Amino acid sequence: MSRSKNDAARPIGVFDSGMGGLTVLRALHELLPGENIIYFGDTARVPYGTKGEKTVRAFASQDAGLLVDLGVKMVVVACNTASAFALEHLRETIDVPVLGVINPGVRTALAETRGGAVGVIGTSGTIRSGRYQEGLKGGGLGPDRILVQECPLFVPLVEEGMMGHAMTVMAVEEYLRPLRDAGVDTLILGCTHYPAMKEDIGRFMGPEVNLVDSADALAAAAQDRLGELGLLHGGDDRREGELEFYLSDIPWKFQEIGARFLGKPIHEVNTVGLDEMEEAGDHND
Amino acid sequence: MSRSKNDAARPIGVFDSGMGGLTVLRALHELLPGENIIYFGDTARVPYGTKGEKTVRAFASQDAGLLVDLGVKMVVVACNTASAFALEHLRETIDVPVLGVINPGVRTALAETRGGAVGVIGTSGTIRSGRYQEGLKGGGLGPDRILVQECPLFVPLVEEGMMGHAMTVMAVEEYLRPLRDAGVDTLILGCTHYPAMKEDIGRFMGPEVNLVDSADALAAAAQDRLGELGLLHGGDDRREGELEFYLSDIPWKFQEIGARFLGKPIHEVNTVGLDEMEEAGDHND
Repeated sequence: MSRSKNDAARPIGVFDSGMGGLTVLRALHELLPGENIIYFGDTARVPYGTKGEKTVRAFASQDAGLLVDLGVKMVVVACNTASAFALEHLRETIDVPVLGVINPGVRTALAETRGGAVGVIGTSGTIRSGRYQEGLKGGGLGPDRILVQECPLFVPLVEEGMMGHAMTVMAVEEYLRPLRDAGVDTLILGCTHYPAMKEDIGRFMGPEVNLVDSADALAAAAQDRLGELGLLHGGDDRREGELEFYLSDIPWKFQEIGARFLGKPIHEVNTVGLDEMEEAGDHND
Repeated sequence: MSRSKNDAARPIGVFDSGMGGLTVLRALHELLPGENIIYFGDTARVPYGTKGEKTVRAFASQDAGLLVDLGVKMVVVACNTASAFALEHLRETIDVPVLGVINPGVRTALAETRGGAVGVIGTSGTIRSGRYQEGLKGGGLGPDRILVQECPLFVPLVEEGMMGHAMTVMAVEEYLRPLRDAGVDTLILGCTHYPAMKEDIGRFMGPEVNLVDSADALAAAAQDRLGELGLLHGGDDRREGELEFYLSDIPWKFQEIGARFLGKPIHEVNTVGLDEMEEAGDHND
Protein backbone atom coordinates (compact mmCIF):
# COMPACT_ATOMS: atom_id res chain seq x y z
CA MET A 1 0.00 0.00 0.00
CA SER A 2 1.48 3.37 -0.96
CA ARG A 3 1.71 5.76 1.98
CA SER A 4 2.79 9.10 0.60
CA LYS A 5 1.83 12.14 2.61
CA ASN A 6 -1.32 13.14 0.76
CA ASP A 7 -2.65 9.79 -0.11
CA ALA A 8 -6.21 9.00 0.98
CA ALA A 9 -5.25 5.34 0.75
CA ARG A 10 -3.09 5.72 3.83
CA PRO A 11 -4.69 3.95 6.80
CA ILE A 12 -6.52 5.49 9.71
CA GLY A 13 -4.69 4.69 12.95
CA VAL A 14 -6.70 3.76 16.03
CA PHE A 15 -5.14 3.20 19.44
CA ASP A 16 -6.47 2.10 22.77
CA SER A 17 -5.04 0.99 26.11
CA GLY A 18 -6.01 -2.57 25.20
CA MET A 19 -8.62 -4.49 23.27
CA GLY A 20 -11.71 -2.42 24.18
CA GLY A 21 -11.01 0.04 21.36
CA LEU A 22 -11.84 -2.70 18.87
CA THR A 23 -15.43 -1.49 19.30
CA VAL A 24 -14.26 1.80 17.76
CA LEU A 25 -12.46 0.00 14.95
CA ARG A 26 -15.65 -1.95 14.29
CA ALA A 27 -17.77 1.22 14.16
CA LEU A 28 -15.25 2.90 11.82
CA HIS A 29 -15.11 -0.12 9.54
CA GLU A 30 -18.91 -0.33 9.37
CA LEU A 31 -19.30 3.36 8.56
CA LEU A 32 -16.26 3.61 6.26
CA PRO A 33 -15.79 0.11 4.81
CA GLY A 34 -13.32 1.29 2.17
CA GLU A 35 -10.82 2.70 4.66
CA ASN A 36 -7.65 0.86 5.56
CA ILE A 37 -7.31 0.85 9.35
CA ILE A 38 -4.42 0.02 11.68
CA TYR A 39 -5.30 -0.81 15.27
CA PHE A 40 -2.80 -0.64 18.10
CA GLY A 41 -3.74 -1.95 21.55
CA ASP A 42 -1.26 -1.35 24.37
CA THR A 43 -2.13 -4.67 25.97
CA ALA A 44 1.25 -4.83 27.78
CA ARG A 45 0.35 -1.80 29.89
CA VAL A 46 -3.44 -1.96 30.01
CA PRO A 47 -5.39 -0.54 31.85
CA TYR A 48 -4.86 3.23 31.67
CA GLY A 49 -7.96 4.18 33.67
CA THR A 50 -6.44 3.67 37.12
CA LYS A 51 -3.14 5.37 36.28
CA GLY A 52 -1.93 8.94 36.71
CA GLU A 53 -2.07 11.73 34.16
CA LYS A 54 1.68 11.87 33.43
CA THR A 55 1.91 8.12 32.87
CA VAL A 56 -1.09 8.05 30.55
CA ARG A 57 0.31 10.97 28.53
CA ALA A 58 3.68 9.22 28.13
CA PHE A 59 2.01 5.99 27.02
CA ALA A 60 -0.31 7.79 24.60
CA SER A 61 2.68 9.58 23.02
CA GLN A 62 4.32 6.25 22.31
CA ASP A 63 1.09 4.72 21.00
CA ALA A 64 0.42 7.61 18.61
CA GLY A 65 4.10 7.72 17.60
CA LEU A 66 3.94 4.07 16.60
CA LEU A 67 0.93 4.72 14.36
CA VAL A 68 2.58 7.78 12.79
CA ASP A 69 5.64 5.65 12.05
CA LEU A 70 3.31 3.22 10.27
CA GLY A 71 2.17 6.05 7.97
CA VAL A 72 -1.38 6.74 9.13
CA LYS A 73 -3.30 9.75 7.79
CA MET A 74 -5.20 10.30 11.05
CA VAL A 75 -4.89 9.14 14.66
CA VAL A 76 -8.09 8.15 16.47
CA VAL A 77 -7.76 7.93 20.24
CA ALA A 78 -10.30 5.24 21.13
CA CYS A 79 -9.37 5.21 24.82
CA ASN A 80 -11.36 7.64 26.95
CA THR A 81 -8.62 8.00 29.55
CA ALA A 82 -5.99 8.77 26.90
CA SER A 83 -8.40 11.22 25.25
CA ALA A 84 -8.90 12.91 28.61
CA PHE A 85 -5.21 13.34 29.42
CA ALA A 86 -3.29 13.36 26.15
CA LEU A 87 -5.37 14.79 23.33
CA GLU A 88 -4.00 18.34 23.43
CA HIS A 89 -0.45 17.04 23.87
CA LEU A 90 -0.79 14.74 20.85
CA ARG A 91 -2.24 17.53 18.73
CA GLU A 92 0.77 19.68 19.56
CA THR A 93 3.34 16.99 18.87
CA ILE A 94 2.25 14.93 15.87
CA ASP A 95 1.55 16.17 12.37
CA VAL A 96 -1.60 14.29 11.36
CA PRO A 97 -5.12 15.10 12.63
CA VAL A 98 -5.91 13.57 16.03
CA LEU A 99 -9.47 12.71 17.07
CA GLY A 100 -10.50 11.92 20.63
CA VAL A 101 -13.56 10.15 21.92
CA ILE A 102 -14.79 12.72 24.43
CA ASN A 103 -16.07 15.58 22.27
CA PRO A 104 -18.07 13.33 19.93
CA GLY A 105 -19.70 11.69 22.96
CA VAL A 106 -20.50 15.07 24.51
CA ARG A 107 -22.07 16.36 21.28
CA THR A 108 -24.26 13.28 20.93
CA ALA A 109 -25.40 13.51 24.56
CA LEU A 110 -26.25 17.21 24.19
CA ALA A 111 -28.29 16.43 21.10
CA GLU A 112 -30.17 13.55 22.75
CA THR A 113 -30.98 14.84 26.23
CA ARG A 114 -34.60 15.87 26.65
CA GLY A 115 -34.14 18.33 29.49
CA GLY A 116 -33.17 15.85 32.20
CA ALA A 117 -29.71 15.21 33.57
CA VAL A 118 -26.82 13.74 31.57
CA GLY A 119 -24.82 11.01 33.27
CA VAL A 120 -21.23 10.06 32.49
CA ILE A 121 -19.69 6.77 33.55
CA GLY A 122 -16.01 5.98 33.08
CA THR A 123 -12.72 4.97 34.67
CA SER A 124 -11.28 6.83 37.65
CA GLY A 125 -8.90 8.70 35.34
CA THR A 126 -11.57 9.78 32.88
CA ILE A 127 -14.00 10.98 35.54
CA ARG A 128 -11.34 12.70 37.65
CA SER A 129 -9.92 14.50 34.60
CA GLY A 130 -13.17 16.51 34.46
CA ARG A 131 -13.11 16.62 30.64
CA TYR A 132 -16.62 15.27 30.09
CA GLN A 133 -17.92 17.65 32.74
CA GLU A 134 -16.19 20.61 31.02
CA GLY A 135 -17.58 19.58 27.64
CA LEU A 136 -21.14 19.31 28.93
CA LYS A 137 -20.85 22.64 30.75
CA GLY A 138 -19.48 24.23 27.57
CA GLY A 139 -22.59 22.93 25.79
CA GLY A 140 -24.78 24.86 28.20
CA LEU A 141 -25.71 22.28 30.85
CA GLY A 142 -25.87 23.53 34.42
CA PRO A 143 -23.97 21.63 37.11
CA ASP A 144 -27.24 20.13 38.44
CA ARG A 145 -27.76 18.43 35.06
CA ILE A 146 -24.33 16.72 35.04
CA LEU A 147 -23.83 13.51 37.07
CA VAL A 148 -20.67 11.44 36.93
CA GLN A 149 -19.72 8.05 38.31
CA GLU A 150 -16.48 6.03 38.34
CA CYS A 151 -17.20 2.36 37.60
CA PRO A 152 -13.86 0.60 38.19
CA LEU A 153 -15.28 -2.94 38.27
CA PHE A 154 -16.96 -2.74 34.85
CA VAL A 155 -13.74 -3.27 32.88
CA PRO A 156 -12.72 -6.50 34.64
CA LEU A 157 -16.30 -7.80 34.51
CA VAL A 158 -16.40 -7.27 30.74
CA GLU A 159 -12.93 -8.75 30.26
CA GLU A 160 -14.16 -11.84 32.09
CA GLY A 161 -17.19 -12.04 29.78
CA MET A 162 -19.59 -11.72 32.72
CA MET A 163 -22.30 -9.77 30.92
CA GLY A 164 -25.68 -10.77 32.34
CA HIS A 165 -24.09 -12.45 35.38
CA ALA A 166 -25.47 -11.75 38.85
CA MET A 167 -22.21 -9.98 39.81
CA THR A 168 -22.55 -7.62 36.86
CA VAL A 169 -26.20 -6.94 37.70
CA MET A 170 -25.12 -6.10 41.26
CA ALA A 171 -22.31 -3.81 40.10
CA VAL A 172 -24.64 -1.99 37.70
CA GLU A 173 -27.17 -1.41 40.48
CA GLU A 174 -24.53 -0.18 42.89
CA TYR A 175 -22.85 2.28 40.54
CA LEU A 176 -25.87 3.49 38.58
CA ARG A 177 -28.57 3.81 41.23
CA PRO A 178 -27.65 7.45 42.08
CA LEU A 179 -27.78 8.37 38.39
CA ARG A 180 -31.15 6.69 37.85
CA ASP A 181 -32.59 8.21 41.02
CA ALA A 182 -31.46 11.66 39.90
CA GLY A 183 -33.47 11.40 36.68
CA VAL A 184 -30.68 11.00 34.14
CA ASP A 185 -32.24 10.78 30.67
CA THR A 186 -28.99 10.34 28.74
CA LEU A 187 -25.99 8.27 29.84
CA ILE A 188 -22.57 8.53 28.19
CA LEU A 189 -20.77 5.17 28.21
CA GLY A 190 -17.38 6.83 28.70
CA CYS A 191 -15.13 3.78 28.31
CA THR A 192 -14.62 1.49 25.34
CA HIS A 193 -15.52 -1.55 27.43
CA TYR A 194 -18.94 -0.40 28.53
CA PRO A 195 -20.90 -0.87 25.29
CA ALA A 196 -20.33 -4.62 25.78
CA MET A 197 -22.59 -4.41 28.84
CA LYS A 198 -25.20 -2.17 27.19
CA GLU A 199 -27.96 -4.70 27.90
CA ASP A 200 -27.23 -4.87 31.63
CA ILE A 201 -27.03 -1.09 31.83
CA GLY A 202 -30.16 -0.54 29.71
CA ARG A 203 -32.18 -3.04 31.75
CA PHE A 204 -31.41 -1.15 34.95
CA MET A 205 -31.69 2.40 33.62
CA GLY A 206 -34.91 1.70 31.72
CA PRO A 207 -35.82 1.98 28.01
CA GLU A 208 -36.43 5.73 28.15
CA VAL A 209 -32.75 6.50 28.93
CA ASN A 210 -30.48 7.16 25.92
CA LEU A 211 -27.19 5.25 26.10
CA VAL A 212 -24.47 7.11 24.19
CA ASP A 213 -21.92 4.73 22.71
CA SER A 214 -18.91 6.88 21.90
CA ALA A 215 -17.72 4.46 19.22
CA ASP A 216 -20.50 5.47 16.81
CA ALA A 217 -20.10 9.16 17.59
CA LEU A 218 -16.34 8.93 17.05
CA ALA A 219 -16.72 7.11 13.72
CA ALA A 220 -19.08 9.83 12.49
CA ALA A 221 -16.61 12.51 13.58
CA ALA A 222 -13.79 10.74 11.72
CA GLN A 223 -15.91 10.60 8.57
CA ASP A 224 -16.67 14.35 8.79
CA ARG A 225 -13.04 15.27 9.36
CA LEU A 226 -11.67 13.07 6.58
CA GLY A 227 -14.30 14.53 4.27
CA GLU A 228 -13.25 18.10 5.10
CA LEU A 229 -9.63 17.17 4.41
CA GLY A 230 -10.41 15.37 1.15
CA LEU A 231 -8.92 12.20 2.61
CA LEU A 232 -11.90 9.83 2.45
CA HIS A 233 -11.02 6.58 0.73
CA GLY A 234 -12.79 3.74 -0.99
CA GLY A 235 -16.09 5.37 -1.82
CA ASP A 236 -15.85 4.48 -5.51
CA ASP A 237 -14.73 0.89 -5.82
CA ARG A 238 -16.36 -1.72 -3.63
CA ARG A 239 -13.08 -3.10 -2.32
CA GLU A 240 -13.13 -3.55 1.42
CA GLY A 241 -10.37 -1.79 3.35
CA GLU A 242 -7.60 -3.75 5.03
CA LEU A 243 -7.53 -4.08 8.80
CA GLU A 244 -4.16 -4.54 10.53
CA PHE A 245 -3.69 -5.34 14.21
CA TYR A 246 -0.74 -4.47 16.47
CA LEU A 247 -0.58 -5.33 20.17
CA SER A 248 2.19 -4.84 22.74
CA ASP A 249 1.29 -8.15 24.44
CA ILE A 250 -0.76 -11.20 23.56
CA PRO A 251 -2.93 -11.63 26.67
CA TRP A 252 -3.93 -15.09 27.92
CA LYS A 253 -7.54 -14.69 26.82
CA PHE A 254 -6.68 -12.90 23.60
CA GLN A 255 -8.94 -14.75 21.14
CA GLU A 256 -11.92 -14.67 23.50
CA ILE A 257 -11.58 -10.99 24.41
CA GLY A 258 -10.83 -9.96 20.82
CA ALA A 259 -13.94 -11.62 19.44
CA ARG A 260 -16.02 -10.02 22.20
CA PHE A 261 -15.12 -6.50 21.05
CA LEU A 262 -14.54 -6.93 17.34
CA GLY A 263 -17.50 -9.25 16.79
CA LYS A 264 -15.34 -11.73 14.88
CA PRO A 265 -12.02 -13.52 15.40
CA ILE A 266 -8.70 -11.78 14.73
CA HIS A 267 -6.57 -13.99 12.53
CA GLU A 268 -3.28 -12.19 12.34
CA VAL A 269 -1.59 -9.94 14.89
CA ASN A 270 1.71 -8.10 14.90
CA THR A 271 3.35 -7.78 18.29
CA VAL A 272 5.31 -4.68 19.23
CA GLY A 273 8.19 -5.10 21.70
CA LEU A 274 9.07 -2.81 24.61
CA ASP A 275 12.08 -1.47 22.69
CA GLU A 276 9.93 -0.51 19.70
CA MET A 277 7.46 1.29 21.98
CA GLU A 278 10.30 3.32 23.42
CA GLU A 279 11.61 4.31 20.00
CA ALA A 280 8.11 5.26 18.87
CA GLY A 281 7.89 7.66 21.78
CA ASP A 282 11.14 9.41 20.91
CA HIS A 283 10.03 11.49 17.97
CA ASN A 284 7.09 13.23 19.53
CA ASP A 285 8.24 14.11 23.02
CA MET B 1 23.92 4.46 53.69
CA SER B 2 27.06 2.65 52.52
CA ARG B 3 26.37 0.09 49.81
CA SER B 4 29.62 -1.75 49.17
CA LYS B 5 29.30 -5.21 47.70
CA ASN B 6 29.60 -7.27 50.89
CA ASP B 7 27.87 -5.01 53.28
CA ALA B 8 24.97 -6.48 55.24
CA ALA B 9 23.66 -2.93 55.64
CA ARG B 10 22.76 -2.87 51.96
CA PRO B 11 18.98 -3.01 51.55
CA ILE B 12 16.84 -5.94 50.51
CA GLY B 13 15.02 -5.15 47.25
CA VAL B 14 11.40 -6.20 46.83
CA PHE B 15 9.48 -5.76 43.60
CA ASP B 16 5.90 -6.39 42.59
CA SER B 17 3.68 -5.56 39.63
CA GLY B 18 1.99 -2.94 41.80
CA MET B 19 1.08 -2.27 45.40
CA GLY B 20 0.01 -5.80 46.43
CA GLY B 21 3.62 -6.75 47.22
CA LEU B 22 3.55 -4.32 50.14
CA THR B 23 2.14 -7.30 52.08
CA VAL B 24 5.51 -8.99 51.48
CA LEU B 25 7.42 -5.88 52.55
CA ARG B 26 5.32 -5.79 55.70
CA ALA B 27 6.05 -9.46 56.49
CA LEU B 28 9.79 -8.92 55.86
CA HIS B 29 9.88 -5.82 58.02
CA GLU B 30 8.05 -7.58 60.86
CA LEU B 31 10.36 -10.61 60.76
CA LEU B 32 13.57 -8.65 60.11
CA PRO B 33 12.99 -5.20 61.62
CA GLY B 34 16.65 -4.20 61.36
CA GLU B 35 16.84 -4.67 57.59
CA ASN B 36 16.79 -1.74 55.21
CA ILE B 37 14.29 -2.50 52.45
CA ILE B 38 13.61 -0.87 49.08
CA TYR B 39 10.23 -1.56 47.49
CA PHE B 40 9.54 -1.09 43.80
CA GLY B 41 5.97 -1.37 42.49
CA ASP B 42 5.48 -1.26 38.70
CA THR B 43 2.22 0.61 39.08
CA ALA B 44 2.49 2.06 35.55
CA ARG B 45 2.16 -1.40 34.01
CA VAL B 46 0.15 -3.30 36.62
CA PRO B 47 -1.35 -5.93 36.41
CA TYR B 48 1.03 -8.68 35.23
CA GLY B 49 -1.39 -11.55 35.84
CA THR B 50 -3.35 -11.20 32.60
CA LYS B 51 -0.27 -10.66 30.42
CA GLY B 52 1.87 -13.06 28.41
CA GLU B 53 5.07 -14.77 29.51
CA LYS B 54 7.45 -12.75 27.34
CA THR B 55 6.01 -9.43 28.48
CA VAL B 56 6.15 -10.36 32.15
CA ARG B 57 9.76 -11.51 31.79
CA ALA B 58 10.77 -8.23 30.12
CA PHE B 59 9.05 -6.18 32.83
CA ALA B 60 10.57 -8.26 35.64
CA SER B 61 14.06 -7.78 34.15
CA GLN B 62 13.62 -4.03 34.29
CA ASP B 63 12.17 -4.14 37.81
CA ALA B 64 15.03 -6.24 39.17
CA GLY B 65 17.59 -4.17 37.24
CA LEU B 66 16.30 -1.04 38.91
CA LEU B 67 16.76 -2.58 42.36
CA VAL B 68 20.27 -3.83 41.50
CA ASP B 69 21.15 -0.30 40.36
CA LEU B 70 20.01 0.90 43.79
CA GLY B 71 22.55 -1.42 45.43
CA VAL B 72 20.38 -4.15 46.96
CA LYS B 73 21.98 -7.28 48.47
CA MET B 74 19.04 -9.53 47.48
CA VAL B 75 16.04 -9.31 45.14
CA VAL B 76 12.72 -10.62 46.43
CA VAL B 77 10.11 -11.18 43.73
CA ALA B 78 6.85 -10.54 45.59
CA CYS B 79 4.69 -10.94 42.49
CA ASN B 80 3.52 -14.49 41.86
CA THR B 81 3.19 -14.00 38.11
CA ALA B 82 6.73 -12.60 37.84
CA SER B 83 8.01 -15.45 40.03
CA ALA B 84 6.28 -17.92 37.72
CA PHE B 85 7.72 -16.55 34.49
CA ALA B 86 10.95 -14.75 35.30
CA LEU B 87 12.69 -16.31 38.31
CA GLU B 88 15.12 -18.52 36.38
CA HIS B 89 15.85 -15.71 33.93
CA LEU B 90 16.61 -13.27 36.76
CA ARG B 91 18.87 -15.79 38.50
CA GLU B 92 20.86 -16.18 35.30
CA THR B 93 21.19 -12.46 34.62
CA ILE B 94 21.69 -10.61 37.90
CA ASP B 95 24.45 -11.11 40.42
CA VAL B 96 22.66 -10.98 43.77
CA PRO B 97 20.50 -13.79 45.19
CA VAL B 98 16.93 -13.80 43.86
CA LEU B 99 14.02 -15.22 45.87
CA GLY B 100 10.60 -15.99 44.40
CA VAL B 101 7.28 -16.45 46.12
CA ILE B 102 6.28 -19.81 44.69
CA ASN B 103 8.67 -22.30 46.33
CA PRO B 104 8.19 -20.91 49.86
CA GLY B 105 4.41 -21.17 49.38
CA VAL B 106 4.69 -24.73 48.08
CA ARG B 107 6.87 -25.81 51.02
CA THR B 108 4.45 -24.35 53.54
CA ALA B 109 1.48 -26.04 51.88
CA LEU B 110 3.24 -29.41 51.80
CA ALA B 111 4.03 -29.06 55.50
CA GLU B 112 0.47 -28.11 56.41
CA THR B 113 -1.70 -30.45 54.34
CA ARG B 114 -3.22 -33.29 56.37
CA GLY B 115 -3.72 -35.75 53.56
CA GLY B 116 -6.42 -33.87 51.67
CA ALA B 117 -6.05 -31.92 48.47
CA VAL B 118 -4.02 -28.69 48.14
CA GLY B 119 -5.69 -25.85 46.27
CA VAL B 120 -3.89 -23.01 44.50
CA ILE B 121 -5.63 -19.77 43.52
CA GLY B 122 -3.92 -17.09 41.44
CA THR B 123 -3.96 -14.95 38.32
CA SER B 124 -4.40 -16.45 34.86
CA GLY B 125 -0.65 -16.17 34.26
CA THR B 126 0.37 -17.83 37.52
CA ILE B 127 -2.06 -20.73 37.16
CA ARG B 128 -1.35 -21.27 33.45
CA SER B 129 2.41 -21.23 34.05
CA GLY B 130 1.98 -24.54 35.92
CA ARG B 131 4.75 -23.65 38.40
CA TYR B 132 2.75 -24.26 41.57
CA GLN B 133 1.50 -27.54 40.12
CA GLU B 134 5.10 -28.62 39.33
CA GLY B 135 6.27 -27.68 42.81
CA LEU B 136 3.49 -29.63 44.52
CA LYS B 137 4.09 -32.65 42.28
CA GLY B 138 7.81 -32.44 43.03
CA GLY B 139 6.90 -32.57 46.72
CA GLY B 140 5.13 -35.88 46.21
CA LEU B 141 1.48 -34.90 45.72
CA GLY B 142 -0.45 -36.91 43.15
CA PRO B 143 -2.41 -35.02 40.50
CA ASP B 144 -5.71 -35.86 42.27
CA ARG B 145 -4.49 -33.90 45.30
CA ILE B 146 -3.72 -30.69 43.34
CA LEU B 147 -6.56 -28.31 42.42
CA VAL B 148 -6.02 -24.93 40.79
CA GLN B 149 -8.31 -22.00 40.05
CA GLU B 150 -7.81 -18.68 38.27
CA CYS B 151 -9.58 -15.87 40.17
CA PRO B 152 -9.27 -12.84 37.86
CA LEU B 153 -11.87 -10.71 39.68
CA PHE B 154 -10.18 -10.92 43.08
CA VAL B 155 -7.52 -8.31 42.26
CA PRO B 156 -9.95 -5.56 41.18
CA LEU B 157 -12.27 -6.35 44.11
CA VAL B 158 -9.39 -5.91 46.56
CA GLU B 159 -8.15 -2.77 44.81
CA GLU B 160 -11.65 -1.35 45.22
CA GLY B 161 -11.57 -2.19 48.92
CA MET B 162 -14.63 -4.43 48.58
CA MET B 163 -13.64 -6.99 51.19
CA GLY B 164 -16.81 -8.29 52.88
CA HIS B 165 -19.05 -6.84 50.14
CA ALA B 166 -21.80 -9.01 48.61
CA MET B 167 -19.97 -8.99 45.26
CA THR B 168 -16.83 -10.35 46.88
CA VAL B 169 -18.83 -13.03 48.72
CA MET B 170 -20.37 -14.01 45.38
CA ALA B 171 -17.00 -14.13 43.59
CA VAL B 172 -15.49 -16.23 46.39
CA GLU B 173 -18.36 -18.72 46.17
CA GLU B 174 -18.14 -18.94 42.42
CA TYR B 175 -14.38 -19.48 42.19
CA LEU B 176 -13.83 -21.56 45.32
CA ARG B 177 -16.84 -23.89 45.37
CA PRO B 178 -15.10 -26.58 43.25
CA LEU B 179 -12.09 -26.51 45.59
CA ARG B 180 -14.21 -26.75 48.72
CA ASP B 181 -16.33 -29.52 47.25
CA ALA B 182 -13.19 -31.47 46.35
CA GLY B 183 -12.05 -31.52 49.98
CA VAL B 184 -9.12 -29.10 49.80
CA ASP B 185 -7.55 -28.89 53.29
CA THR B 186 -4.86 -26.35 52.39
CA LEU B 187 -5.26 -23.37 50.05
CA ILE B 188 -2.32 -21.38 48.69
CA LEU B 189 -3.22 -17.70 48.24
CA GLY B 190 -1.05 -17.41 45.13
CA CYS B 191 -1.30 -13.66 44.55
CA THR B 192 -0.14 -10.78 46.74
CA HIS B 193 -3.64 -9.29 46.72
CA TYR B 194 -5.46 -12.30 48.11
CA PRO B 195 -4.38 -12.11 51.78
CA ALA B 196 -6.42 -8.89 51.96
CA MET B 197 -9.55 -11.02 51.46
CA LYS B 198 -8.48 -13.79 53.83
CA GLU B 199 -11.62 -13.33 55.94
CA ASP B 200 -13.97 -13.73 52.98
CA ILE B 201 -12.05 -16.76 51.77
CA GLY B 202 -11.79 -18.31 55.24
CA ARG B 203 -15.50 -17.85 55.93
CA PHE B 204 -16.39 -19.76 52.78
CA MET B 205 -13.73 -22.48 52.98
CA GLY B 206 -14.30 -23.11 56.69
CA PRO B 207 -12.01 -22.91 59.74
CA GLU B 208 -10.43 -26.32 59.15
CA VAL B 209 -8.81 -25.23 55.86
CA ASN B 210 -5.25 -23.83 56.11
CA LEU B 211 -4.79 -20.60 54.14
CA VAL B 212 -1.17 -20.23 53.04
CA ASP B 213 -0.13 -16.59 52.82
CA SER B 214 3.03 -16.59 50.73
CA ALA B 215 4.23 -13.32 52.28
CA ASP B 216 5.10 -14.99 55.58
CA ALA B 217 6.67 -17.98 53.87
CA LEU B 218 8.74 -15.71 51.66
CA ALA B 219 9.95 -13.59 54.58
CA ALA B 220 11.09 -16.74 56.38
CA ALA B 221 12.92 -17.91 53.25
CA ALA B 222 14.65 -14.54 52.95
CA GLN B 223 15.77 -14.77 56.58
CA ASP B 224 17.21 -18.26 56.02
CA ARG B 225 19.02 -17.25 52.88
CA LEU B 226 20.52 -14.07 54.30
CA GLY B 227 21.62 -16.07 57.35
CA GLU B 228 23.40 -18.61 55.15
CA LEU B 229 25.15 -15.80 53.32
CA GLY B 230 26.12 -13.94 56.50
CA LEU B 231 24.17 -10.92 55.27
CA LEU B 232 21.61 -10.50 58.05
CA HIS B 233 21.54 -6.98 59.39
CA GLY B 234 20.41 -5.18 62.50
CA GLY B 235 20.22 -8.05 64.93
CA ASP B 236 22.45 -6.33 67.49
CA ASP B 237 21.37 -2.75 67.81
CA ARG B 238 17.69 -1.95 68.12
CA ARG B 239 17.63 0.56 65.27
CA GLU B 240 14.72 0.00 62.91
CA GLY B 241 15.62 -0.47 59.24
CA GLU B 242 14.78 2.18 56.66
CA LEU B 243 11.98 1.57 54.18
CA GLU B 244 12.16 3.27 50.78
CA PHE B 245 9.38 3.23 48.18
CA TYR B 246 9.67 3.52 44.40
CA LEU B 247 6.70 3.40 42.03
CA SER B 248 6.47 3.80 38.24
CA ASP B 249 3.12 5.60 38.56
CA ILE B 250 1.15 7.25 41.33
CA PRO B 251 -2.29 5.70 40.90
CA TRP B 252 -5.46 7.67 41.61
CA LYS B 253 -6.22 5.73 44.78
CA PHE B 254 -2.62 5.51 45.88
CA GLN B 255 -2.93 6.44 49.57
CA GLU B 256 -5.98 4.25 50.07
CA ILE B 257 -4.55 1.19 48.31
CA GLY B 258 -1.13 1.64 49.92
CA ALA B 259 -2.49 1.71 53.44
CA ARG B 260 -4.61 -1.36 52.66
CA PHE B 261 -1.54 -3.48 51.93
CA LEU B 262 1.11 -1.91 54.11
CA GLY B 263 -1.15 -1.44 57.12
CA LYS B 264 -0.05 2.19 57.52
CA PRO B 265 0.24 5.27 55.29
CA ILE B 266 3.22 5.74 52.96
CA HIS B 267 4.66 9.20 53.49
CA GLU B 268 7.32 9.52 50.84
CA VAL B 269 7.50 7.92 47.40
CA ASN B 270 10.05 8.15 44.61
CA THR B 271 8.63 7.89 41.11
CA VAL B 272 10.52 6.16 38.34
CA GLY B 273 9.97 7.39 34.78
CA LEU B 274 9.57 5.27 31.65
CA ASP B 275 13.05 6.22 30.49
CA GLU B 276 14.63 5.07 33.75
CA MET B 277 12.78 1.74 33.50
CA GLU B 278 14.19 1.23 30.05
CA GLU B 279 17.75 1.93 31.18
CA ALA B 280 17.34 -0.39 34.15
CA GLY B 281 16.42 -3.19 31.77
CA ASP B 282 19.52 -2.72 29.63
CA HIS B 283 22.15 -4.26 31.87
CA ASN B 284 20.52 -7.58 32.48
CA ASP B 285 19.09 -8.59 29.12
